Amino acid sequence: MDFEVDDIRFPTSEHLDGSDAMNPDPDYSAAYVVLRADGGGPGGAGEEGHGFCFTIGRGNDVMAAAIRALRPYVVGRPVPRDATGLAALYRTLTHDSQLRWLGPEKGVMHMAAGAVVNAAWDLAAKLAGKPVWRFLAGMTPEELVSLVDFRHLTDALTPQEALGILRAAEPGRAERTERLLAEGYPAYTTSPGWLGYDDDKLVRLAEEAVADGFTQIKLKVGADLGDDVRRLAVARRAVGPGIRIAVDANQRWDVADAVEWMKALAPYDPYWIEEPTSPDDVLGHAAVRAGQPVKVATGEHVANRVVFKQLLQAGAVDFVQIDAARVAGVNENLAVLLLAAKYGVPVCPHAGGVGLCELVQHLSMFDYVAVSGSREDRVIEYVDHLHEHFADPAVVEDGHYVAPRAPGFSARMLPASIAGHRYPQGPVWQARRTHEETGR
Amino acid sequence: MDFEVDDIRFPTSEHLDGSDAMNPDPDYSAAYVVLRADGGGPGGAGEEGHGFCFTIGRGNDVMAAAIRALRPYVVGRPVPRDATGLAALYRTLTHDSQLRWLGPEKGVMHMAAGAVVNAAWDLAAKLAGKPVWRFLAGMTPEELVSLVDFRHLTDALTPQEALGILRAAEPGRAERTERLLAEGYPAYTTSPGWLGYDDDKLVRLAEEAVADGFTQIKLKVGADLGDDVRRLAVARRAVGPGIRIAVDANQRWDVADAVEWMKALAPYDPYWIEEPTSPDDVLGHAAVRAGQPVKVATGEHVANRVVFKQLLQAGAVDFVQIDAARVAGVNENLAVLLLAAKYGVPVCPHAGGVGLCELVQHLSMFDYVAVSGSREDRVIEYVDHLHEHFADPAVVEDGHYVAPRAPGFSARMLPASIAGHRYPQGPVWQARRTHEETGR
Repeated sequence: MDFEVDDIRFPTSEHLDGSDAMNPDPDYSAAYVVLRADGGGPGGAGEEGHGFCFTIGRGNDVMAAAIRALRPYVVGRPVPRDATGLAALYRTLTHDSQLRWLGPEKGVMHMAAGAVVNAAWDLAAKLAGKPVWRFLAGMTPEELVSLVDFRHLTDALTPQEALGILRAAEPGRAERTERLLAEGYPAYTTSPGWLGYDDDKLVRLAEEAVADGFTQIKLKVGADLGDDVRRLAVARRAVGPGIRIAVDANQRWDVADAVEWMKALAPYDPYWIEEPTSPDDVLGHAAVRAGQPVKVATGEHVANRVVFKQLLQAGAVDFVQIDAARVAGVNENLAVLLLAAKYGVPVCPHAGGVGLCELVQHLSMFDYVAVSGSREDRVIEYVDHLHEHFADPAVVEDGHYVAPRAPGFSARMLPASIAGHRYPQGPVWQARRTHEETGR
Repeated sequence: MDFEVDDIRFPTSEHLDGSDAMNPDPDYSAAYVVLRADGGGPGGAGEEGHGFCFTIGRGNDVMAAAIRALRPYVVGRPVPRDATGLAALYRTLTHDSQLRWLGPEKGVMHMAAGAVVNAAWDLAAKLAGKPVWRFLAGMTPEELVSLVDFRHLTDALTPQEALGILRAAEPGRAERTERLLAEGYPAYTTSPGWLGYDDDKLVRLAEEAVADGFTQIKLKVGADLGDDVRRLAVARRAVGPGIRIAVDANQRWDVADAVEWMKALAPYDPYWIEEPTSPDDVLGHAAVRAGQPVKVATGEHVANRVVFKQLLQAGAVDFVQIDAARVAGVNENLAVLLLAAKYGVPVCPHAGGVGLCELVQHLSMFDYVAVSGSREDRVIEYVDHLHEHFADPAVVEDGHYVAPRAPGFSARMLPASIAGHRYPQGPVWQARRTHEETGR
């Protein structure tokens, strides 16, 4: 195999899409990997696997540099086509002692490993002719367990326990696969709730969301308590009592702030408070959960399986929010799904950004088919932007993700989108610079 | 100001210096920053500040790329000369929302901020004509508190509490400064204990360490229990009962492994077990501490102040091991010193690598003068290599660090060392490639 990396950025800050209390002006971006089977080893020459890190603009070049640092471990390697090959690649990319020093297993270097691991899953699933969720759900419990790195996990979950969870879910796999194909997987939408939107836009989008079949929406909070009380009241009036409204503070608070704020918002019945404080703060999340009445969710910035383990051990969260591109790819997210199943906590993925909906839907669908066996209280985030850049975009109908049918991880960005948004040389960015310089 | 970044690597893997259970073949490296006062703003034109990230080889180029991503926040900025300027620079570098997404506050991007922050401290202290420890110890409690980012800390430490700690230590500052200048600060040495050394070399180096005045040494453990029992027994026989022998597992174990291993080593009276498991695993460290009789130390890979906070809140550690170049520089380490003082836990810094002894001695000496006010049970790691590359190298005499007298952070690498070890084009690396290619 070999791969190329591109720095792709979308100028989303122009419209305040994605604005929240910590991230006022994101330019949604991807450090984008194209992994190529070069015919070394058995078969697959010419096939491509696609993967990426999601960033919000500046620093996307640093991510690209980190991905390039992994190239020596990929070049000349045969294409991984099964659990054995995918487990070996994941371990190679995360266990190099010198690169591991840069984390360990967190931040830029770890996300870079995730991009390459996910690209390999895309490639392997394509070669198997299956969407990733079905490729995973076709593996035996033993194969799935072999994909997980249990280092630093065994005080909470042993390989034997993981095997037990997967075997218990084996009998219903076929039936749940059929249900997914027929019914899809529940989604919720964040589109109404960005902090940069005024109340009229919030109401209009919230009403549209309900009309579109969503039973849960999400509002960004955390910049100003008075504003948040008003916005949540406005949203509650707009959607009525039967619709869940989650709120998301994007790490803005300390523990006492979170407790005070959520007590003030509680009369409007928020469904969960997301990222009330630092994603590293296991004990802080536990204190927030204990200190106010609203359920706690976190995970999009949780660095790795060891922190997820502790959030579960400490009883710090009511919902685990995996992100497809923050940890080291499918393999590490499989560990998190198993941990969540062990502790009986529903997984409600983070998505949005660029391509995160496309990726993470596969993980939730696999979770339903082969791990937790349940869609109850489970819902995948959906944000309706930038899907037009993908060859196999996520599709939400009547508030549900439609199960992907095309082989792979739904990760392929359209060639025109890549060419147009390369940073800094792509035409979209050239035009923006010209506009800034000349006013036209 | 403006800065340049160099990728500097030393081929230490040739001699197995620095080998441990997780890191078998490190090439000690620095992503090295030279910050220049360019005469924009008041004074200091031509002066330089030096700072760096420490890595163990591969990926040093990724660190350099991350540091370069911070350049727009530095170019054209006036030289920070006091607490106000240094607080503002630290916040600017760690609070950029887009770059923060790459951590947040962890891994490559966070260490990059640390390198630039530390270079600014070097420059500011030089302009003040003081070594960093005295520059810090000359600030008022209010100035010191202003340097700290209390976000996500206030459930454990408020600014008011920090002020109380610093004010309580104020009266003895002058006396403790004099004592440091006269007596230095206790050191321990890791030089005997690298995993790649045979028993004869271990004994010889351990005996030399005691002869040199050290009262504590450290052994790497964690690859093989039988070997570790033998090596610790051998070391204990060599140094006798009066010398402390710490052991260091470099994250190799899960909780149950750590407990089992340390029970087996306990008869040889190890002083502490360092990094028994993942540095992210607050609850795991607490379980290890509760499950076996040996004291627990960690910190060299702890990503930020929020994880240190939890290690202290959970009673997970007996010793806090700050690293000068892992977190976001002096400012964030000041937060950790204050947290440790609040919880009454001694700070025993990690050092070694390239230049880490040089930097971190300043932080411990400042801690003694102005924060904890104590050297009891406190000791700075010392590893006797690569000091020859520094203009103001750390000096250990009779088991004590000699207090630095030269202005700055002791961070300046000699021009010949930089020129010789640039990667990949420097003569040391060119010669190594020639040797590999031709055998000569």
